[in-house]
Amino acid sequence: MNRIPAHPDPAEIALQQVLEALVDPVRRSIVTQLAQAAEDVKCGGFDLDVSASTATHHFKVLREAGLIRQYYVGTSRMNSLRDEEFEQVHPGLLGAIVAAESSRRPRKPVG
Amino acid sequence: MNRIPAHPDPAEIALQQVLEALVDPVRRSIVTQLAQAAEDVKCGGFDLDVSASTATHHFKVLREAGLIRQYYVGTSRMNSLRDEEFEQVHPGLLGAIVAAESSRRPRKPVG
Repeated sequence: MNRIPAHPDPAEIALQQVLEALVDPVRRSIVTQLAQAAEDVKCGGFDLDVSASTATHHFKVLREAGLIRQYYVGTSRMNSLRDEEFEQVHPGLLGAIVAAESSRRPRKPVG
Repeated sequence: MNRIPAHPDPAEIALQQVLEALVDPVRRSIVTQLAQAAEDVKCGGFDLDVSASTATHHFKVLREAGLIRQYYVGTSRMNSLRDEEFEQVHPGLLGAIVAAESSRRPRKPVG
Protein backbone atom coordinates (compact mmCIF):
# COMPACT_ATOMS: atom_id res chain seq x y z
CA MET A 1 0.00 0.00 0.00
CA ASN A 2 1.40 3.35 -0.97
CA ARG A 3 0.39 6.03 1.55
CA ILE A 4 2.46 8.74 -0.17
CA PRO A 5 1.23 10.48 -3.33
CA ALA A 6 3.34 10.37 -6.47
CA HIS A 7 6.46 12.48 -6.59
CA PRO A 8 6.76 14.68 -9.70
CA ASP A 9 9.94 14.75 -11.74
CA PRO A 10 11.79 17.98 -10.86
CA ALA A 11 12.38 18.55 -14.59
CA GLU A 12 8.61 18.96 -15.02
CA ILE A 13 8.22 21.59 -12.30
CA ALA A 14 8.12 25.22 -13.45
CA LEU A 15 10.55 27.60 -11.78
CA GLN A 16 7.51 29.59 -10.63
CA GLN A 17 6.30 26.70 -8.49
CA VAL A 18 9.79 26.11 -7.10
CA LEU A 19 10.18 29.75 -6.06
CA GLU A 20 6.69 29.85 -4.56
CA ALA A 21 7.75 26.86 -2.45
CA LEU A 22 11.04 28.42 -1.40
CA VAL A 23 9.76 31.95 -0.71
CA ASP A 24 8.19 30.69 2.52
CA PRO A 25 10.62 30.86 5.46
CA VAL A 26 9.28 27.71 7.14
CA ARG A 27 9.74 25.72 3.94
CA ARG A 28 13.26 27.13 3.47
CA SER A 29 13.99 26.07 7.04
CA ILE A 30 12.83 22.51 6.30
CA VAL A 31 15.00 22.35 3.18
CA THR A 32 18.00 23.79 5.03
CA GLN A 33 17.66 21.41 7.97
CA LEU A 34 17.47 18.49 5.53
CA ALA A 35 20.56 19.74 3.71
CA GLN A 36 22.46 19.93 6.99
CA ALA A 37 21.27 16.62 8.40
CA ALA A 38 23.46 13.56 8.13
CA GLU A 39 20.46 11.40 7.24
CA ASP A 40 16.79 11.62 6.32
CA VAL A 41 14.53 13.29 8.90
CA LYS A 42 11.09 12.23 10.08
CA CYS A 43 8.33 14.85 9.96
CA GLY A 44 8.36 15.27 13.73
CA GLY A 45 12.13 15.68 13.82
CA PHE A 46 12.40 19.22 12.50
CA ASP A 47 12.92 22.33 14.58
CA LEU A 48 9.92 24.36 13.38
CA ASP A 49 7.79 26.99 15.10
CA VAL A 50 4.52 25.81 13.55
CA SER A 51 1.86 23.24 14.43
CA ALA A 52 2.09 19.69 13.13
CA SER A 53 -0.81 20.23 10.72
CA THR A 54 0.78 23.40 9.34
CA ALA A 55 4.07 21.56 8.95
CA THR A 56 2.26 18.79 7.04
CA HIS A 57 1.01 21.41 4.59
CA HIS A 58 4.53 22.75 4.09
CA PHE A 59 5.92 19.24 3.47
CA LYS A 60 3.20 18.74 0.85
CA VAL A 61 4.12 21.95 -0.97
CA LEU A 62 7.79 20.95 -1.00
CA ARG A 63 6.96 17.44 -2.22
CA GLU A 64 4.76 18.77 -5.03
CA ALA A 65 7.52 21.19 -6.06
CA GLY A 66 9.91 18.27 -6.51
CA LEU A 67 12.14 19.37 -3.63
CA ILE A 68 11.66 16.53 -1.14
CA ARG A 69 10.85 12.84 -1.26
CA GLN A 70 8.66 11.29 1.44
CA TYR A 71 8.41 7.64 2.42
CA TYR A 72 7.37 5.59 5.43
CA VAL A 73 9.50 3.65 7.86
CA GLY A 74 6.97 1.89 10.05
CA THR A 75 4.63 4.66 11.18
CA SER A 76 7.17 7.47 10.68
CA ARG A 77 6.95 9.59 7.55
CA MET A 78 10.53 10.31 6.49
CA ASN A 79 11.81 13.17 4.34
CA SER A 80 14.81 13.35 2.06
CA LEU A 81 16.03 16.28 0.02
CA ARG A 82 16.04 15.68 -3.74
CA ASP A 83 19.09 17.88 -4.06
CA GLU A 84 20.96 15.83 -6.63
CA GLU A 85 17.97 15.56 -8.95
CA PHE A 86 17.18 19.22 -8.46
CA GLU A 87 20.76 20.24 -9.20
CA GLN A 88 20.45 18.62 -12.62
CA VAL A 89 17.48 20.83 -13.45
CA HIS A 90 18.42 24.13 -11.75
CA PRO A 91 22.19 24.12 -11.12
CA GLY A 92 23.21 26.30 -8.20
CA LEU A 93 19.74 27.37 -7.10
CA LEU A 94 19.15 25.13 -4.10
CA GLY A 95 22.75 25.39 -2.93
CA ALA A 96 22.63 29.18 -3.02
CA ILE A 97 19.45 29.26 -0.94
CA VAL A 98 20.68 26.71 1.59
CA ALA A 99 23.97 28.58 1.92
CA ALA A 100 22.18 31.87 2.55
CA GLU A 101 19.90 30.27 5.15
CA SER A 102 22.75 28.46 6.87
CA SER A 103 24.78 31.65 7.28
CA ARG A 104 21.77 33.50 8.61
CA ARG A 105 20.82 31.31 11.55
CA PRO A 106 22.50 28.17 12.80
CA ARG A 107 19.82 25.67 13.72
CA LYS A 108 19.62 23.23 16.53
CA PRO A 109 20.57 19.70 15.49
CA VAL A 110 17.58 17.77 14.19
CA GLY A 111 16.78 14.19 15.07
CA MET B 1 19.62 66.85 -7.98
CA ASN B 2 19.18 63.15 -7.29
CA ARG B 3 15.87 61.90 -8.62
CA ILE B 4 16.59 58.26 -7.68
CA PRO B 5 16.29 57.00 -4.10
CA ALA B 6 19.27 55.44 -2.40
CA HIS B 7 20.31 51.95 -3.45
CA PRO B 8 20.77 49.52 -0.58
CA ASP B 9 23.87 47.38 -0.29
CA PRO B 10 22.92 43.84 -1.44
CA ALA B 11 24.78 42.49 1.60
CA GLU B 12 22.19 44.17 3.83
CA ILE B 13 19.17 42.64 2.08
CA ALA B 14 17.65 39.56 3.67
CA LEU B 15 17.21 36.52 1.45
CA GLN B 16 13.48 36.74 2.21
CA GLN B 17 13.24 40.13 0.48
CA VAL B 18 15.29 38.91 -2.49
CA LEU B 19 13.06 35.85 -2.99
CA GLU B 20 9.89 37.94 -2.63
CA ALA B 21 11.27 40.13 -5.42
CA LEU B 22 12.15 37.19 -7.64
CA VAL B 23 9.00 35.12 -7.09
CA ASP B 24 7.09 37.55 -9.33
CA PRO B 25 7.26 36.51 -13.00
CA VAL B 26 7.29 40.09 -14.31
CA ARG B 27 10.23 40.96 -12.08
CA ARG B 28 12.07 37.80 -13.13
CA SER B 29 11.47 38.81 -16.73
CA ILE B 30 13.00 42.26 -16.07
CA VAL B 31 16.06 40.70 -14.43
CA THR B 32 16.43 38.14 -17.23
CA GLN B 33 16.12 40.75 -20.00
CA LEU B 34 18.77 42.86 -18.24
CA ALA B 35 21.05 39.84 -17.94
CA GLN B 36 20.67 39.14 -21.65
CA ALA B 37 21.01 42.75 -22.83
CA ALA B 38 24.35 43.99 -24.11
CA GLU B 39 23.92 47.27 -22.25
CA ASP B 40 21.72 48.99 -19.67
CA VAL B 41 18.03 49.27 -20.57
CA LYS B 42 15.68 52.22 -20.12
CA CYS B 43 12.41 51.58 -18.31
CA GLY B 44 10.42 51.82 -21.53
CA GLY B 45 12.73 49.41 -23.32
CA PHE B 46 11.57 46.16 -21.76
CA ASP B 47 9.23 43.64 -23.32
CA LEU B 48 6.61 43.45 -20.54
CA ASP B 49 2.88 42.75 -20.62
CA VAL B 50 2.04 45.29 -17.89
CA SER B 51 1.21 49.00 -17.79
CA ALA B 52 3.95 51.57 -17.33
CA SER B 53 2.82 52.34 -13.79
CA THR B 54 2.81 48.66 -12.85
CA ALA B 55 6.27 48.29 -14.37
CA THR B 56 7.46 51.26 -12.27
CA HIS B 57 6.31 49.42 -9.15
CA HIS B 58 8.22 46.31 -10.19
CA PHE B 59 11.41 48.32 -10.85
CA LYS B 60 11.08 49.82 -7.37
CA VAL B 61 10.80 46.39 -5.73
CA LEU B 62 13.87 45.17 -7.61
CA ARG B 63 15.82 48.32 -6.71
CA GLU B 64 14.92 48.01 -3.01
CA ALA B 65 15.95 44.34 -3.05
CA GLY B 66 19.42 45.33 -4.26
CA LEU B 67 18.97 43.65 -7.64
CA ILE B 68 19.02 46.61 -10.01
CA ARG B 69 20.58 50.07 -10.12
CA GLN B 70 18.66 52.99 -11.63
CA TYR B 71 20.06 56.26 -12.96
CA TYR B 72 19.06 58.97 -15.37
CA VAL B 73 20.43 59.76 -18.80
CA GLY B 74 18.61 62.95 -19.76
CA THR B 75 14.96 62.15 -19.19
CA SER B 76 15.36 58.38 -19.52
CA ARG B 77 15.54 56.28 -16.38
CA MET B 78 18.08 53.55 -17.04
CA ASN B 79 18.40 50.16 -15.34
CA SER B 80 21.44 48.00 -14.78
CA LEU B 81 21.63 44.60 -13.15
CA ARG B 82 23.75 44.50 -9.98
CA ASP B 83 24.76 40.96 -10.81
CA GLU B 84 28.41 41.22 -9.80
CA GLU B 85 27.60 42.73 -6.39
CA PHE B 86 24.81 40.24 -5.89
CA GLU B 87 27.04 37.30 -6.79
CA GLN B 88 29.34 38.28 -3.94
CA VAL B 89 26.48 37.97 -1.46
CA HIS B 90 24.50 35.01 -2.86
CA PRO B 91 26.78 33.04 -5.18
CA GLY B 92 24.90 31.15 -7.87
CA LEU B 93 21.41 32.35 -7.01
CA LEU B 94 20.81 34.99 -9.68
CA GLY B 95 22.59 32.98 -12.36
CA ALA B 96 20.45 29.92 -11.63
CA ILE B 97 17.25 31.93 -11.91
CA VAL B 98 18.29 33.74 -15.08
CA ALA B 99 19.36 30.44 -16.65
CA ALA B 100 16.01 28.84 -15.82
CA GLU B 101 14.10 31.81 -17.23
CA SER B 102 16.24 31.98 -20.35
CA SER B 103 15.69 28.33 -21.19
CA ARG B 104 11.96 28.68 -20.62
CA ARG B 105 11.14 31.46 -23.06
CA PRO B 106 13.45 33.30 -25.41
CA ARG B 107 12.54 36.98 -25.32
CA LYS B 108 12.41 39.52 -28.09
CA PRO B 109 15.50 41.75 -28.15
CA VAL B 110 15.09 44.76 -25.93
CA GLY B 111 16.14 48.28 -26.82
